[in-house]
Amino acid sequence: MAEASLRDGAESQARSSRVVIVGAGFAGLAAARELGNTAIDVTVIDRRNHNLFQPLLYQVATAALSPADISEPIRRTLGRYRNIRVMLAEVIGVDAVAKTVKLDGGTDVAYDRLVIATGSEYNYFGHDDWRAWAPGLKTIHEARLIRQRLLIAFEKAELSHDPEEKKALLTSVIIGGGPTGVEMAGAIAELGRFMITRDFRRLEPDHMRVILIEAGPKILAAFPDNLTQYALKALEKAGVEVMTNLPVQSVTNGEVVAGSLRIRTGCVIWGAGVKASPAGTWLGIEGKPAGRIPVGADLSVTGFADIYAVGDTSAALGEDGKPLPALAQVAKQQGEYLGKALRQGLLEGRVASPFQFRNRGNTAVIGRNAAIFDFGKWTLKGRLAWFLWAIVHVYLLVNFEKRLLVSIQWIWRYLTRQRGARLIDENAAISVPSSTQRTET
Amino acid sequence: MAEASLRDGAESQARSSRVVIVGAGFAGLAAARELGNTAIDVTVIDRRNHNLFQPLLYQVATAALSPADISEPIRRTLGRYRNIRVMLAEVIGVDAVAKTVKLDGGTDVAYDRLVIATGSEYNYFGHDDWRAWAPGLKTIHEARLIRQRLLIAFEKAELSHDPEEKKALLTSVIIGGGPTGVEMAGAIAELGRFMITRDFRRLEPDHMRVILIEAGPKILAAFPDNLTQYALKALEKAGVEVMTNLPVQSVTNGEVVAGSLRIRTGCVIWGAGVKASPAGTWLGIEGKPAGRIPVGADLSVTGFADIYAVGDTSAALGEDGKPLPALAQVAKQQGEYLGKALRQGLLEGRVASPFQFRNRGNTAVIGRNAAIFDFGKWTLKGRLAWFLWAIVHVYLLVNFEKRLLVSIQWIWRYLTRQRGARLIDENAAISVPSSTQRTET
Repeated sequence: MAEASLRDGAESQARSSRVVIVGAGFAGLAAARELGNTAIDVTVIDRRNHNLFQPLLYQVATAALSPADISEPIRRTLGRYRNIRVMLAEVIGVDAVAKTVKLDGGTDVAYDRLVIATGSEYNYFGHDDWRAWAPGLKTIHEARLIRQRLLIAFEKAELSHDPEEKKALLTSVIIGGGPTGVEMAGAIAELGRFMITRDFRRLEPDHMRVILIEAGPKILAAFPDNLTQYALKALEKAGVEVMTNLPVQSVTNGEVVAGSLRIRTGCVIWGAGVKASPAGTWLGIEGKPAGRIPVGADLSVTGFADIYAVGDTSAALGEDGKPLPALAQVAKQQGEYLGKALRQGLLEGRVASPFQFRNRGNTAVIGRNAAIFDFGKWTLKGRLAWFLWAIVHVYLLVNFEKRLLVSIQWIWRYLTRQRGARLIDENAAISVPSSTQRTET
Repeated sequence: MAEASLRDGAESQARSSRVVIVGAGFAGLAAARELGNTAIDVTVIDRRNHNLFQPLLYQVATAALSPADISEPIRRTLGRYRNIRVMLAEVIGVDAVAKTVKLDGGTDVAYDRLVIATGSEYNYFGHDDWRAWAPGLKTIHEARLIRQRLLIAFEKAELSHDPEEKKALLTSVIIGGGPTGVEMAGAIAELGRFMITRDFRRLEPDHMRVILIEAGPKILAAFPDNLTQYALKALEKAGVEVMTNLPVQSVTNGEVVAGSLRIRTGCVIWGAGVKASPAGTWLGIEGKPAGRIPVGADLSVTGFADIYAVGDTSAALGEDGKPLPALAQVAKQQGEYLGKALRQGLLEGRVASPFQFRNRGNTAVIGRNAAIFDFGKWTLKGRLAWFLWAIVHVYLLVNFEKRLLVSIQWIWRYLTRQRGARLIDENAAISVPSSTQRTET
């Protein structure tokens, strides 16, 4: 009898509990799912209407997949949970005293528990003017932009009669030797070589250069040396020039300056580092490192009541006392942990044990038949790693339809080397290089 | 001996024959294919890098398919023909005396035979300022724009607290009762009803209106009355309000004025008529009707030597003496005819018999299980017509990969009613309606 009324009390408290989750990436969605179809009132706010499977975004940028293959409307993902409401809106601040989230446009949303899961963005280390010439790879918009620049550079090179200009247009520069940089470099080399031999008449494979620039002493610094060495060889075999210990000094339209090098280029891609979303400033926090919000072992924001931070924007510490890396698997595990902790806390009054990250393996793919896996105790590389990479990434897609569509396109590509999404938007500027008036005969 | 030397002469003449095709739509591509792997030197110029299967573009606009599912790089389509060169460039004029095509940027391309296949664009009948508020459906860019406006209107409606504003945002207006208008109206009604019942929490199906406005006395005027009647009933069953004899007086941001009606709306789509591309002006011709270039029975442009016009931009006459309709099947047949005629003319010196259009059947789809076919002597409507429509359109796609991808998505959608491509680009403006400051609890 006493127990029943206690439970009733918890239920009615839960019903009046409002959890607001800002951001529907890996972390936010995982938290929301754990809270789905409970008596808790959940609101998920994102400025985008879709979640994005970022590990495959480089394939959109290199014309292998369509944006819709790797993204899904947040409403669709969460539609089955009747207690979850989705808002497409931009958050501009948090009032931790009134316990409200402020939206662009003047609406406030009240919360009892707030989850900040706003992710990260590319860090240009004070050179935000480089962004226009060297987009990163965080959104569909950027992936389409990169795809267009790449394809237009090839088209312009085909039309050019100036050998120097031709070479410059066919030179791609990728800044940053992390997994994204390596994946982009490998994919661009494959795409370029295929297009030149198959589809263009006035370009030679030798005209093409793909340059991967890393400021530090080695690429894929998070991986053990044997895998880095393998990746380096695989990249070089694919025709990528890897340059390490080379900090970039300037990026302008069509030129990258690094060390003593001046590289004329048709397409620059930024993958040199991330910083946390500016969510810390909502709380008046200057997060560290790179804007990440300090949290305790329960992922609650240090110094605030009822506010939590998960994923790339959170500076949770690992067992070694260092901040956990900004990886999808960390975000997902934190979201799941927090969603479960909030559910049990609000419905059952239970206190959760501290968050612990379980490393499921770190991976990067260089190209056809070449990938690396680091599982901590053991590693994997080569064709087998590549198959495993493909299977894992198909499996991680959000539903059966996307798994089927991506599988078919990958099998098709494996057999034909064709990339199906080589689209240039009609609104992109195209024109024949106008150096000289000439008649083609 | 005499014959052999004659053939040699024809071969060497062909080798020096340069055919330039401007535009790689249905007509231009069909012509190019007929000239593929011959001794003729062919150049295809388009300002886009892809051809587009326009009959399915409305499915991109209504989030059912991805752009890459229905478009393919022109280079990929023509890559197998070693005598065909593709140029991504904008044509700005023709010098019929010097026999050159002028490209934006200063390059001239010389021709011996010129094929103009530049298609059509939407006709705003002197109101080009309406275009910004009422995009047509001719390019991927426009399809994405419409998809975004539709989805954003629903998102804004979900956030709105003003019942009038909610209703306005959920009202879509389609101007023009031709096949495109009917297809869009049916698809928007289906999409909207599904999203409201499944994914939104604060919208009711009754809030939604889809209005199809036609200036003339009936929709689908090119079809026989029994089919039009059926389409009208199917549209009304799907929840579309069809208004005929209602010319539009103005289109502004968020409002359409037609007759005595003032309709507040979240999304307007234009499908009220097409005009030919401005290619006629390159020749100093004011084409008729609606800018279409006058051609003879061999599709050569009247008054010009060695210049031909095919597809929507050509005003070829049918057996009844009226201009042929601007349809994909007309364009394809004309392109095939002309490509063959040029090949036989240049290689064998043969003179082609006049072009004759063969009607393969005219079709429009209203929605799930509802389509119409007009084969001239007999007609088809309902579920069977819809299955036939789906099979024909999958078959007409450019290759096996696209056929498979589209089939899977259609089957998936038929079973689940889900539309996989409900993406709003990150750069689209979103903000909460700001009428009043309020706190949501």
